[in-house]
Amino acid sequence: MQVKNYSEIEKTHFDNEAMKGIEACVVIGKKDGAENFCMRVFEVEPGGHTPKHAHDWEHEIFVHSGEGEAYGNGVWNPFKAGAALFVPANEEHQIRNSGSQLLTFVCLIPSKAPEL
Amino acid sequence: MQVKNYSEIEKTHFDNEAMKGIEACVVIGKKDGAENFCMRVFEVEPGGHTPKHAHDWEHEIFVHSGEGEAYGNGVWNPFKAGAALFVPANEEHQIRNSGSQLLTFVCLIPSKAPEL
Repeated sequence: MQVKNYSEIEKTHFDNEAMKGIEACVVIGKKDGAENFCMRVFEVEPGGHTPKHAHDWEHEIFVHSGEGEAYGNGVWNPFKAGAALFVPANEEHQIRNSGSQLLTFVCLIPSKAPEL
Repeated sequence: MQVKNYSEIEKTHFDNEAMKGIEACVVIGKKDGAENFCMRVFEVEPGGHTPKHAHDWEHEIFVHSGEGEAYGNGVWNPFKAGAALFVPANEEHQIRNSGSQLLTFVCLIPSKAPEL
């Protein structure tokens, strides 16, 4: 068993046109022995967003803190802490922090996808 | 895309010698189209615990609220909200709520395992 806290893991900072105000890290991945799926944590500043894109793997997301909106099915879907989001493979999606607090979510992907 | 909040999903209650003070639900599973891994949410009352057991699939756990201890590697490992726990396949494990608040965690399993 491994136990770590995401707050103690070094983050990668993303701040460009596609991804704004994002800190992200892998918390459970191949290096830990996870062979089937990978857990990452994303922190999104107020006003920040992930890229709008699609890819041939799914996301399973759990919102730990804050609130925001997720683009999917052609509309923006509001969510808050405690929400679970399923993004099927090949569906265009994006997440933005529309609140005033930090948005923190866990995002899982199958192991065939790039970990971060 | 599907968006739901775990607080709105009907829970299964477990209260026996092996599992004490537990409410659990599947938030993203096969019914939602998730073919590779499954997300469940567990709420554990203060003093409650999951079963001590082992099985041939892994867990990836994220602690949403509260605090507790996880049995693994032969010892009890303390954790609190924000912790990520990786339990490899076939390792004996158990989680207990050693705090005074509700312990809520997300637990992911590969699709070959029973969803709940």
